[in-house]
Amino acid sequence: MRTSLAKKYLADALAHVERIIPARSSNPALSLLRLESQDGAISFSGSNLDIDIKAKIAADTETDAVIALPAQVFGQVVRALPGELVELVVEDRELEIRSGSFATKLQLSDASQTLEPSFPSNYQSHLSAEDLAKALQHVRYAAAVAEYQAIFRGVKLELSDRHLRAIATDGFRLAYYNIAEPSGMNANIVIPARSVEELSKILGEGDAHVNLDNNQLSVKSGIYSMNVKLLEGDFPNYERVIPQHFVMHVSLDSKALLEAVSRVAVMADKTSNNRIDLFIKDGHLQITAEGGYGRSQEALGISQEGTESEIALAYNARYLEDALKQVEGEARLSFSGTTSPSLIQSIRDPNYLSMVVPLKTN
Amino acid sequence: MRTSLAKKYLADALAHVERIIPARSSNPALSLLRLESQDGAISFSGSNLDIDIKAKIAADTETDAVIALPAQVFGQVVRALPGELVELVVEDRELEIRSGSFATKLQLSDASQTLEPSFPSNYQSHLSAEDLAKALQHVRYAAAVAEYQAIFRGVKLELSDRHLRAIATDGFRLAYYNIAEPSGMNANIVIPARSVEELSKILGEGDAHVNLDNNQLSVKSGIYSMNVKLLEGDFPNYERVIPQHFVMHVSLDSKALLEAVSRVAVMADKTSNNRIDLFIKDGHLQITAEGGYGRSQEALGISQEGTESEIALAYNARYLEDALKQVEGEARLSFSGTTSPSLIQSIRDPNYLSMVVPLKTN
Repeated sequence: MRTSLAKKYLADALAHVERIIPARSSNPALSLLRLESQDGAISFSGSNLDIDIKAKIAADTETDAVIALPAQVFGQVVRALPGELVELVVEDRELEIRSGSFATKLQLSDASQTLEPSFPSNYQSHLSAEDLAKALQHVRYAAAVAEYQAIFRGVKLELSDRHLRAIATDGFRLAYYNIAEPSGMNANIVIPARSVEELSKILGEGDAHVNLDNNQLSVKSGIYSMNVKLLEGDFPNYERVIPQHFVMHVSLDSKALLEAVSRVAVMADKTSNNRIDLFIKDGHLQITAEGGYGRSQEALGISQEGTESEIALAYNARYLEDALKQVEGEARLSFSGTTSPSLIQSIRDPNYLSMVVPLKTN
Repeated sequence: MRTSLAKKYLADALAHVERIIPARSSNPALSLLRLESQDGAISFSGSNLDIDIKAKIAADTETDAVIALPAQVFGQVVRALPGELVELVVEDRELEIRSGSFATKLQLSDASQTLEPSFPSNYQSHLSAEDLAKALQHVRYAAAVAEYQAIFRGVKLELSDRHLRAIATDGFRLAYYNIAEPSGMNANIVIPARSVEELSKILGEGDAHVNLDNNQLSVKSGIYSMNVKLLEGDFPNYERVIPQHFVMHVSLDSKALLEAVSRVAVMADKTSNNRIDLFIKDGHLQITAEGGYGRSQEALGISQEGTESEIALAYNARYLEDALKQVEGEARLSFSGTTSPSLIQSIRDPNYLSMVVPLKTN
């Protein structure tokens, strides 16, 4: 096999594949990248057992080949190449990589030892890759971390002829992104949060082709194909916990609120849920925190409306920060009471909704 | 005490002081910053026992004060402040920090518990802060790491009426920076490498005032004062090991060589000193490396002169890379033989000299 590729293109593709393939593994075959040359294209694939990935680049190749090589070393060599073009030649159990005045010969590993991830040849459906990425990226933060029940560590994706919706919750907060357009298929699945991150990274422009089979989601976008194992179990009934009635709404610049919360929270007690207190009255929002080092406060002007003229609540500062980071421009906060969930929404992007449960103020 | 300062100025000063003060310590008093207000200035000081630092900022203050507070929390609050001005008020065992609509009250610790670093009131001599920084920064990399004898883990500074010179060596390589101008004092001292880094950071423009007393170096540059404990012991006689006779000199662009060495070295055997081989003949330099993953090579054009027409040597790639990083523009490599030290010099900056001992090629 002999072919020539643009360095930038190859380096980008390898960077994506390398992210999935483990640098070290008790099973050394798992840290190998599989290179296949066939039908005018070269594909690079690998797996970490939870996620399979393949990048396929069109290339003139004379002969077919299937080889395996250490993924990290290959990536390191390619990124450092001096020229804009890379020549790849497979010969005598070696891959020769040439670029400018540089050449390297990488010893090949046994390709029969590698996993051979299988990707669908036909996909059941397609939807907008950008919409899918946007939905997943807006809610990812609200998934639970390790110590929780497995199903909370995933992002639920609802695909129907009415909407494409992503939801994540850890029981104390929830994030929700709803695109009210037909998504071309009907499915409710839960994707592990780590896989959501990787999947977001391969989603480009145009269509994302989607397949569901045997508790596995397969997505193809541009030159990338990815399979991710899904979580099994009952995702909590989130719709019932989102409040519908509110005693107060306020709106203000999201970035200003985010910065004030972060500033005040330096004094918050880390052992007591990073508690910060909010007090709203007469078009002013006052944020305070108190802990072992001292106390902080900051006041911001807001627009305020609703049946109550004042309200006092406490939150985990981190939860407010995470929710606000997804809002550009004006944020709208809606309070259903001092102990029931509050909503944070984006005025510019009505698809996004975040819910945070206040801390008990006793 | 009550005063007002520019946030940027205060944040910069605290960042320098915070670098020295340990975030956590078995002796909690060590993680405190000492703030003193006196004679129209506020000073912030701290210590890690090896290094003392003080930053002194001119400020209108009404009353004198000496207080102590947790350094990291103070720095975190100041960096996050919303306004350009910061008001500091000491009252009732608290430091109030106000900026814009934000205010915090930090609880004070007992100032009598803190170390009170003592800095000279008069300095013996002064020299160019930029020269001192340049000399230290060019040689720091060649100091030995932990497993070596203590004296090799320092940078020797020679101050005399003929020169200001910094030298570091780990026995396998050496870096040397010599400014052939009177340095205003006579002293040979060895500064621990970690302290060299911190000292470089406080050196600004203009004069650095210098004092030597009781195995301690004190330097004042701009608003910063620093004391560093010196290493005791005999620094090796480095002059005798620098070769004077050469069989070949080559010159080429330092960055091109650095990149080629790094590229080829990806294949070098990490368990065998990161060995790369150089072969020079007929105006060409060929670099090769071979290890468990395969082998690499690259050829570069060079200017070549000397009594030998060809030479083959091996080096630790890291050592060549470190030495070349200090050279801008053309580098000149001088070879005294295949087993005796080679020199790397900068054509643009003749003050710099680096020596690397080749690996045995057997």
